[in-house]
Amino acid sequence: MNDRDDRDDRNPGEDQARGVSRRGLLGAGLAVAGAGVGAAAGIAGSAVASGVDPFTAAANGDESVDTSRSHPFYATTAGAPQGGIRTDPQRHCVFMTFDLTLGTATELQVLLARWSAAIAQLQAGETIGSVEPAHGDGVGADTGEALDLGPASLTVTVGLGPGVFDERFGLAGKRPADLAELPSLPSDRFESGLTGGDLSLQACADDPQVAYHAVRDLARMARGSATVKWTVLGFGRASAGPTQATPRNLMGFKDGTRNITTDADHDRFVWLDEDADWMAGGTYQVVRKIRMNLEIWDADVVSDQQRVFGRTKVSGAPLSGGQEHTTPDFHATAHGAPAIDPRSHVALAAHEANGGVKILRRGYNYTDGLNQYGQLDAGLLFVAYMNDPDHFTRLQRKLGASDRLNEYIAHIGSAVFAVPPAPRKGSYIGEQLFR
Amino acid sequence: MNDRDDRDDRNPGEDQARGVSRRGLLGAGLAVAGAGVGAAAGIAGSAVASGVDPFTAAANGDESVDTSRSHPFYATTAGAPQGGIRTDPQRHCVFMTFDLTLGTATELQVLLARWSAAIAQLQAGETIGSVEPAHGDGVGADTGEALDLGPASLTVTVGLGPGVFDERFGLAGKRPADLAELPSLPSDRFESGLTGGDLSLQACADDPQVAYHAVRDLARMARGSATVKWTVLGFGRASAGPTQATPRNLMGFKDGTRNITTDADHDRFVWLDEDADWMAGGTYQVVRKIRMNLEIWDADVVSDQQRVFGRTKVSGAPLSGGQEHTTPDFHATAHGAPAIDPRSHVALAAHEANGGVKILRRGYNYTDGLNQYGQLDAGLLFVAYMNDPDHFTRLQRKLGASDRLNEYIAHIGSAVFAVPPAPRKGSYIGEQLFR
Repeated sequence: MNDRDDRDDRNPGEDQARGVSRRGLLGAGLAVAGAGVGAAAGIAGSAVASGVDPFTAAANGDESVDTSRSHPFYATTAGAPQGGIRTDPQRHCVFMTFDLTLGTATELQVLLARWSAAIAQLQAGETIGSVEPAHGDGVGADTGEALDLGPASLTVTVGLGPGVFDERFGLAGKRPADLAELPSLPSDRFESGLTGGDLSLQACADDPQVAYHAVRDLARMARGSATVKWTVLGFGRASAGPTQATPRNLMGFKDGTRNITTDADHDRFVWLDEDADWMAGGTYQVVRKIRMNLEIWDADVVSDQQRVFGRTKVSGAPLSGGQEHTTPDFHATAHGAPAIDPRSHVALAAHEANGGVKILRRGYNYTDGLNQYGQLDAGLLFVAYMNDPDHFTRLQRKLGASDRLNEYIAHIGSAVFAVPPAPRKGSYIGEQLFR
Repeated sequence: MNDRDDRDDRNPGEDQARGVSRRGLLGAGLAVAGAGVGAAAGIAGSAVASGVDPFTAAANGDESVDTSRSHPFYATTAGAPQGGIRTDPQRHCVFMTFDLTLGTATELQVLLARWSAAIAQLQAGETIGSVEPAHGDGVGADTGEALDLGPASLTVTVGLGPGVFDERFGLAGKRPADLAELPSLPSDRFESGLTGGDLSLQACADDPQVAYHAVRDLARMARGSATVKWTVLGFGRASAGPTQATPRNLMGFKDGTRNITTDADHDRFVWLDEDADWMAGGTYQVVRKIRMNLEIWDADVVSDQQRVFGRTKVSGAPLSGGQEHTTPDFHATAHGAPAIDPRSHVALAAHEANGGVKILRRGYNYTDGLNQYGQLDAGLLFVAYMNDPDHFTRLQRKLGASDRLNEYIAHIGSAVFAVPPAPRKGSYIGEQLFR
């Protein structure tokens, strides 16, 4: 992929969005500074002592969401990725998987072509056809609940599961080299109905109703071709793009501090290269629904929580010292013991401990209300992109076996998908698969 | 209540919020106009024919959410209402009810006092005490996931259910005159665990994680005093304040067009007057979790959907003609039949057909993912405020018996609460109850 120099074309919507976003941040950052300082001051003295920067804290919460922003759907160059991967994470996400009931590759082509045309309209803030046919005669093509809400930075990312390449459609010869169901992993606690899928939709937007509408209307379009399998509504992103401050997961810790940000790392760890044939410029999507035992977590002393993550809670600095983005020093000691516990999440997940391998995380917090014991039922919709699903598998095998975090989490849902590159105008997602 | 002239003091946060909001809208409205027109243009010709105003459509979606906005918690005059009632609806809501396990009125006083102090901090964008105690020693007073997110216009509204006034606490003599469990109604299809509660929290904010954090940390504070009963996460408001465009419910129709907006109507239908003793300036809260059979609804022809509501889908105009805010003409005819079906939702719910009675609606859309049949499980978190719960009961008895909408909805959850006025600084919610 090193011969591709024009980064601006890789993600069709990125530059447009970033330009608007930065302008928005300037004004908003100033307006919010007072409130942010107030918020920081509300934290006990220890927060200040642990090095939280009031202005940084303010900047994290300043986002004036501009729902008129839009990401174009079609790529202007071949092999550009779909939106919703490198795109700065929007505030909300609806994820859904489907099982195919259609019978032929041609029918799958038609579904992907219809979805692509519809996604292009949705990302532009348009409806999918008519909400109100002339004289109300007939069923609406669009269910209408996102009318007037604007594009809200919507991106819809389409994935193809291993089932697309089984014996049903004659596409086995085109199976992406590394696409297969994930193996059993030590952290698996899967619940009925929360695994797999032949297709996935990841709709992310700055308005939750825009994301919900997109998935609802695309699911409606798939009727007769596919059945819905499982879905998660994510609220509050749990990872940041390069221009964003690091958000917090529901355990109260910053999540994704060491996430992939550079072009070089995206090329090396996320995008598939020319060897991937029709998937060149695409990637793999690994999704896990991770339940957090929040009430047990909340009863833990903060020093232990920090030991579990290997970072301080307020600033997110590694326990070896410094600020949030200081490189953790896994050799540092404190009181004769490692400053960062070797079984902490940051130590086990670090690329330094995993042959240099990184994955692009793009998660969201979720809640399912209360469980049968009246406790909070919530956690993380973990979504990650990588050019080999085995990178996740190897990492998770290690984390699932040793991570101190395991006491507080359970992986209750799982799926893996191949994510083809974005289509160019006049084409559709996955067209190259059918050539 | 007519002797209260200073409206600005009624809702402590309202004016501050409105000032910021209008300034924000000016710039955002201009910036978004192009996108809004594009969105309107994407609707089929019939939308234009039905009179949608592109600029209005744009204005609906323009909201640049400013998460630095805050609503003060304490009232500056006696008998001012709590926030989250007349406050312009924020974009997200977490609703939760609790059953008391504490034993005495004094313990209830302590819980309400602790909640009040905490809510004041949360609405200011502060944490509830320390996230990270010195040296991480001890359990955090605040779970931390809303750090850096700003106040996000948070309001937390506290309600007292009928159980507070039963034999347990010696408060029966103080029971608000009209507070009692709602009677059985024809639309009731209650599900196990989704009814009632001794206390309610309604946390609304422009960031869902801020609302979730507030309820989570207040529930945590109630441990040993109360158990959580049921909760709903609302995304996307389904009613508008006076300065807001009317939003849409998940059926794609504008919801709340004829909602209460004027001071006179609030005085007449929402606030309790001096006769209400310690509840003067308070109100009643009726909450219903209303499931929508969306997949059946989506298969209905739009002309029938419009007949069900009595309004057009895109513009929201009554079927008797005009624009969204044109007063419906229930006597108008078309082709020899009533233009607005007498069993339509707008006809049955109209104050003209209910002795002039109005209720203040403040609902949110919700989703619970998929049901056991793999269909969308979603609907409306109906929250309404009124100075007599019987206003809801009478209305719903009629709607539940005749409304054409009944084919598509089910009331699966229900509760009623008395909502005391806001406390003044140094006091707490409900203090007058214990005098």
